This record gives sequence, structure tokens and C-alpha cells, in this order.
Amino acid sequence: MTPPVVLDAMGGDHGPAETVAGAVAAWRGHGVPVLLVGDRERVESEVRRHGAGGEIGVVHASDAVPMAEPGAAASTLTATSLAVGCELVGRGEGGAFVSAGSTGAVVSCAVRGIGRAGGVLRPALAVALPSLRGGASVLVDAGATADPSPAMVAQFALLGAGYARAVLGRTDPSVGLLSIGSEPGKGNRLTRRAAELIAALPLRFHGNVEGHDVLAGTVDVIVTDGFTGNVVLKNVEGCVRTALGMVAEAGIASPERLAEVARRYDPETHGGAALLGLRGTVVVAHGSSRAATITRACVVASALAGQAVAEPVP
Amino acid sequence: MTPPVVLDAMGGDHGPAETVAGAVAAWRGHGVPVLLVGDRERVESEVRRHGAGGEIGVVHASDAVPMAEPGAAASTLTATSLAVGCELVGRGEGGAFVSAGSTGAVVSCAVRGIGRAGGVLRPALAVALPSLRGGASVLVDAGATADPSPAMVAQFALLGAGYARAVLGRTDPSVGLLSIGSEPGKGNRLTRRAAELIAALPLRFHGNVEGHDVLAGTVDVIVTDGFTGNVVLKNVEGCVRTALGMVAEAGIASPERLAEVARRYDPETHGGAALLGLRGTVVVAHGSSRAATITRACVVASALAGQAVAEPVP
Repeated sequence: MTPPVVLDAMGGDHGPAETVAGAVAAWRGHGVPVLLVGDRERVESEVRRHGAGGEIGVVHASDAVPMAEPGAAASTLTATSLAVGCELVGRGEGGAFVSAGSTGAVVSCAVRGIGRAGGVLRPALAVALPSLRGGASVLVDAGATADPSPAMVAQFALLGAGYARAVLGRTDPSVGLLSIGSEPGKGNRLTRRAAELIAALPLRFHGNVEGHDVLAGTVDVIVTDGFTGNVVLKNVEGCVRTALGMVAEAGIASPERLAEVARRYDPETHGGAALLGLRGTVVVAHGSSRAATITRACVVASALAGQAVAEPVP
Repeated sequence: MTPPVVLDAMGGDHGPAETVAGAVAAWRGHGVPVLLVGDRERVESEVRRHGAGGEIGVVHASDAVPMAEPGAAASTLTATSLAVGCELVGRGEGGAFVSAGSTGAVVSCAVRGIGRAGGVLRPALAVALPSLRGGASVLVDAGATADPSPAMVAQFALLGAGYARAVLGRTDPSVGLLSIGSEPGKGNRLTRRAAELIAALPLRFHGNVEGHDVLAGTVDVIVTDGFTGNVVLKNVEGCVRTALGMVAEAGIASPERLAEVARRYDPETHGGAALLGLRGTVVVAHGSSRAATITRACVVASALAGQAVAEPVP
């Protein structure tokens, strides 16, 4: 039997009302078993509301991590739904962990409860962004490690390439380093050194890419530090929204038709970011996730759980 | 008489053919006097092609800086059009300097030839980005200083606010620090420390803003380091292009009508970035600039030259 996806029922802006509904739909609609972690009374009451008492298990956790909690502080709280959930996966009682909680707190708890894969210095968050030609590029790190060393950035390149192989099916993914000029040697101190390290890895290294390459499909994997990656990820969402808003304002297309395009870059659609470099699968859903996004994150996590995304890092 | 705008005739991807045409149009169409700097023979031959021998002066510079030249190396070459042009402005023989050359090289030559304003640690590039509500936000630093210290980032906040006052007419501009969470304390080491320093400045500090705020008009000035700022600037251009491309692909609006929207974020339209924190005005035009963009950069530079953008920095 497939081990269940462990879901942080307390995470995200909307709490158990949305997470439990998402879990029920993941099981009933996609056959993905889910184990809920959170305040037993509140969570079981939501489960009953769906008449799903016999379908979904609940593990009690007395605390929840507030959304604004910095990551490091969160990992010292051992009774939170995040900590308890990650430990379940760490002990093999769950196949993957999903949370819509604060990214920083999820990263800290996952490192502590699940542990890093052998040789991995820091985990990295990967998000697949659709590009114009109908393809997609993996942005990594999209926000797990804000101050990585050059060696960590080089590992992100390997982790991202592994993800592109496992999830996007690219047999020999091309990897670009996000910088401020395509010529070698352009960048800040971090990227100039990271470029040298990545060039020595067994990877198809394309060299530097720039901000305009992120959605252009120039490379399969776009590597950057977690600060720049998170700014870029949110900038993509904002720019697409603004560009489509200007088209609507100009009255040259209907808002309904434009909404179809907007959905491709909606965090509600892509279902979440995968946290790479751990001994287990972790998917971080957007804090604003509603039930449908939680369902999608559970389905993605279940699919990822069997695949070898984390690989030995030189 | 207005001192002329000094134009690097050799800068940019297209050289004298486009820069000279741009200079002629700046004078004939906008009454902005321009002094061209570059290889006398090539530049004067272009000036004659426009029959503008009596309208535009030429100062000889035997060398040009290649577009791929790293900034620091460029500033040691004293016979380049960049170095000669900046010296002219430094000596007061020109009111402003315009170049479509490599940003790094322009920054180095401008610091050497024009000099930093009193108390300024490093210059910063400012670009006004249109936002949905019809306003604009100033992004600073958009690429002058890739590895600033927290104190430098705090100065960029002052320089950006001065620019928003002088150019956008905001009497009390709001300033946001680009980071990876809106809550205080979120960010990397650089932004966490910069936030503390900015909070102590005589500014309307809004706190952290995120990637989705860049085009949302959340604040008048978005402050960041030159690496992140340059990635974001190019990401904005790329995302708008991709979003509009998807609208065109979906067949829900005509490419011609979409082009009107695209032009708002086209580097050809905004005419250039202002290099702040120097003793004189410097405008950096996009490397791909054609004549019309050069003209616009000259007009913007002339308008900026009289205004006190650089101000005493605490």
C-alpha cells in the first residue's frame, strides 16, 4: 500500500477548513491517501463535516507555527504540526510531507525532522515555471536558502537538474546561472564563484542567463540563491498580473479570456514548490492556498515521493 | 546657453550610425544641444550624412570600450569615448553624459571622470517602471553596484527618494526595501541590516516589499542591491513580453494592440536609467538602443541636468 502523504492541517492562511477539504478531495478524487496532522479536535470536526472519518487518519499536534514565524525559531518547537508531520515522514510513516505554512519554518522543520540527503549542504526550493514555447523551466532555489555559499549554489544546480529529469522528463537538462550579464565573469561575488564551480560539474552548463530568460525557455534549469529566486518568483507572478491587467484596461481582450492566461502563473495552479536535497519528499504550497491547491500539492507530492530527485552530490 | 549633453557616439550595439542620428534629432526636434565624442573620422562622416556639420560638435576619442568589457578594466583606458566624455562633464564642459555602452564600464568611467557626490559611497542606477494604477515606481539600484554593503543600500534609498522627488514629482515618496517577506526581519543578511539602517533615515520607510510589488505601485521607490535590481529589471521586461505573447498565442487580442502595452516596458521607451550619486548627470541607455531611444535619453539627461537629484547623504 502507498504510504500516505502527511499534510500539515494547520498550515496556510485558511487553516483546517481548506486543508481538510483538500485532503478529502486528494483521496476521493485521486486515490492519494492523506494523513492529517494538527489540533485533533478542530481537524476531526472538519473531517466529520465531510463524512470522511473512515477515510483519513489524524495525528495530534498541540501547536501550530504562526505564518510570520522565522524559520529557525520554528524548528525548536517540537509539538507543532510542522515538526510532528516532518518526524512522521522522517520515520517512514509517511511518503511525503505537504504544508502551506511559512516557507522558512517548513525548511527548518524538514531539515530537522527528515534530514538532508547525503552530502547536501542546504536544501533548495524548486518551482517549474511555464515558458512561451509551451515548455517549462525549473527555478531553483526559489526561497529555501537566502544566503548560500557558492558551493551550495553549485549543489542547487545538481538538485535542479535531478528535478528536471525526474519531473519534467528532460534526459540531459541544460542549466543556466541567473546573473546580470550573459558573458562569463559578469555577476556578483557569489555568482562569479558559483559559475566556476558549476562549470566543473557533470552537467550541461549553458553559462549565465539573465532576468529576461526566466520565462523564455532558454534553459531547463535556472539556478540562483534563495533570495534572488524568491524575489524573481514573486516578480513573475506580479508582472504577469500587471501585464494582463494593462491589456484588460486597454479593453483589447475580455477579462475572462485573460484569466485563462493568468492561471498558468497562478501559485494556485502549479500546486507548490518542491523542497530538494532532503531524505524525503516535501512540497510547500502557497500560504494563500485553498482546498483545490492543497489537493494538487498532495497529488504532486505523492507522484514525487517515488522518484529519485535527490541524488548523490559531488 | 544650456551646456550640451555629451553623447558617447561609439556606445551601444549599433555605433555612430544610430547615436549620431539620435543626436541630430535631439537638437533639431527638441532643442537639446549635443556634443559627440568618438572616432572623429567615423563620427563626422555620419554628421555630414545628416547635413548637420554646423549644428553638432565632435570631440575626438581614439578608442571605444567593447560592450563586453568589465567595468573596472574600462576605467583604466583614458582615450576611450567613455573616459573622454565623462571628463568633459567632470570639467563642466557638458551638462550631462549619455551612453549606450556597457553599464559596468559607464559606471567606472563616470566615477573616475565625474566623481561621486559628497558622502556617496557608490552610485546607483535608477529606472522608473510604470505600474498598473497609471503611476510609476523607481527601482534603485538597477545594476550599478552588484555587491553593496548595507550602508550603501541605505544610501540608495536616499538617492532613489531624491530621484522620485525631482523626476516623478513626489513630495514625500514612500520607500520599500525589496525582500522575501513583508514582515520585518525577513530577508538575507544584506537586507536585514539595510532595513535597520533605512529605518533610521529621514524617509517615509514602508518596510519590506516583495517581488510582486515591483509593478503594483505599492511604493514610490523600491530599493535593492544592484545584482537583484538588474535581474528584476530584466525579468520585468521578459515577463511582460511572455505574458503578452501568451495572450497573442491564445488569439484573444491582436498583436498590434498588444504591442501598445508592450511598449510601456520596452527599454526603447523609457529612454534610459539615471546613474545617481555623482557630481553630474549620467544616463545609461540600453545597449540595443536605436536613434529614437538615444534622442530620448539625451532629452531626459538634459532635463535631469538642472535638477538636484544627488543630495547630501547622512
